[in-house]
Amino acid sequence: MSVFTTVTPAELAVWLKGYSIGELVELKGIAAGITNTNYALTTTQGKYVLTLFETLQAHELPYYVNLMAHLAHHGIACAAPIANLRDAYIDRLAGKPTVLVSWLQGEPVESPNPAQCRAMGAMLARLHGAGASYAGHMANPRGPAWWSATAAELYAFMPEADGRQLRAEVAQQARHRFTQLPSGVVHADLFRDNVLMQGERIGGFIDFYYACNDVLIYDLAVTLNDWCARDDGEIDDERAAALCAGYQSVRALNAAERQAWSLMLRAAALRFWVSRLWDWHKPQAGELTWRKDPAVFQRILTCHQARTEAAGWLTG
Amino acid sequence: MSVFTTVTPAELAVWLKGYSIGELVELKGIAAGITNTNYALTTTQGKYVLTLFETLQAHELPYYVNLMAHLAHHGIACAAPIANLRDAYIDRLAGKPTVLVSWLQGEPVESPNPAQCRAMGAMLARLHGAGASYAGHMANPRGPAWWSATAAELYAFMPEADGRQLRAEVAQQARHRFTQLPSGVVHADLFRDNVLMQGERIGGFIDFYYACNDVLIYDLAVTLNDWCARDDGEIDDERAAALCAGYQSVRALNAAERQAWSLMLRAAALRFWVSRLWDWHKPQAGELTWRKDPAVFQRILTCHQARTEAAGWLTG
Repeated sequence: MSVFTTVTPAELAVWLKGYSIGELVELKGIAAGITNTNYALTTTQGKYVLTLFETLQAHELPYYVNLMAHLAHHGIACAAPIANLRDAYIDRLAGKPTVLVSWLQGEPVESPNPAQCRAMGAMLARLHGAGASYAGHMANPRGPAWWSATAAELYAFMPEADGRQLRAEVAQQARHRFTQLPSGVVHADLFRDNVLMQGERIGGFIDFYYACNDVLIYDLAVTLNDWCARDDGEIDDERAAALCAGYQSVRALNAAERQAWSLMLRAAALRFWVSRLWDWHKPQAGELTWRKDPAVFQRILTCHQARTEAAGWLTG
Repeated sequence: MSVFTTVTPAELAVWLKGYSIGELVELKGIAAGITNTNYALTTTQGKYVLTLFETLQAHELPYYVNLMAHLAHHGIACAAPIANLRDAYIDRLAGKPTVLVSWLQGEPVESPNPAQCRAMGAMLARLHGAGASYAGHMANPRGPAWWSATAAELYAFMPEADGRQLRAEVAQQARHRFTQLPSGVVHADLFRDNVLMQGERIGGFIDFYYACNDVLIYDLAVTLNDWCARDDGEIDDERAAALCAGYQSVRALNAAERQAWSLMLRAAALRFWVSRLWDWHKPQAGELTWRKDPAVFQRILTCHQARTEAAGWLTG
């Protein structure tokens, strides 16, 4: 259930007079997403998604919303925000900040094939290219400082061996700095459920609310760990090579990025292992959270640790 | 034939590396338009139109291109310009200024029905509403000063009775000022061939290169004279009423606009009668011009002059 705030067609019809997208034909709650209310909106002109933000406040939205607009104007497959008659993307309805975006075609894929991974890599590299001219800036709220502090609160809840592994990886990551690597706008959460696919074409990226400025190959690593992992935590070589080849068909990695690549795959696994452990052991009062299995990312991390050389995916 | 500047797929593939829209799949010249070169462009990501400007220079384009972007961001059905990696909509190829825009669905209709006229009116009013927050400004280059000066050069070429009618209308229009009427961004050239339709839905407005700031109902009058005229120059009441009702479903005309309406229909007819007479009698060297029959707009003007009251269309 993901309609936390109810909007009636009558309310919406009035609210839509502040926009240029025609008259309301149909309004339907969307049963996906756990932090915001989403409606599918059909008007005489087209189809849109209306998001009512349940936790983010209006002043926190411009980085994300202007980024989506910026990327859409560059032809990146993502939802384009629609401005109201006051020329603002961020509006208000039923006491909540809102954003109205264009409807994207496509569905998430559960088991992507290599061609889909390749398309995914190419679009991700294009996102990075188009993001280079984006003026906004946002530090990664789930970076090393966050995972170090969060892990420190988790060791007490963990079996000793797991805690040792987590502690060792946090320490290992802390011994490296990546400030010399190309950085810019990253989506930082391009799991399969945040990508709508139409066959082998990217219909669009959604859910930009972890986007931030960080090392670009971190984004590729986050994507690879979800798109190319088998159930046992091993990375599927064919899909990983396709994702990396797609990415590099648009932007080739430099020597420093290739050298940092193995460690970055571990960093990306660590970030989600820690956040899932946190949600598992410390569910927040009043917050609706899907408790997803943290062990998935522990397994991926273990595989990356065992693998001395992941750079093979980069050369095909 | 409307490919004046030839671009090869090889050239285009290189040029596209400056954009985020994927790799070239197909390039096809578009046989429409007489002032610019247009290509239909298919990439791995989608379909686009590439325009190479043959007469307008790069510094003349921002008003039009930023307007298209502004309107598209507000959900108005029009082609959205795509920015390049330098974050510019206006680029250069084969020595010509270029703009790349999203492909629009639909085809022009030759004989619009009342439902299509109604949709057209509503979208036009939405364009006017969304245009209110557009920062650019451009005087109408085809306004009273232009038609007065141009008509003065045409009388010598015209049969005496026609010249008398033209002179009288120019004088009649000069006796009125419309500065008190709501004004803003107008397309000023929304003939049927500049509107792509998908059934009764507006697929998109194209060809914004006469857009300017002027009286809003002038735009409605220009549209009505083309969309609702029968071959004999009489206006079809049902289509005219539908167009006006569609418009007013979004923005109701005020008293001053209703009073000025009949004269505005004549002004809109006069503008195109004069420009067609000019193209007929004074074709410019080196300019490719479709010599369209000026008499069409003379007949429309004559009908408007004979009709003492066109306001009936405004009340349905």
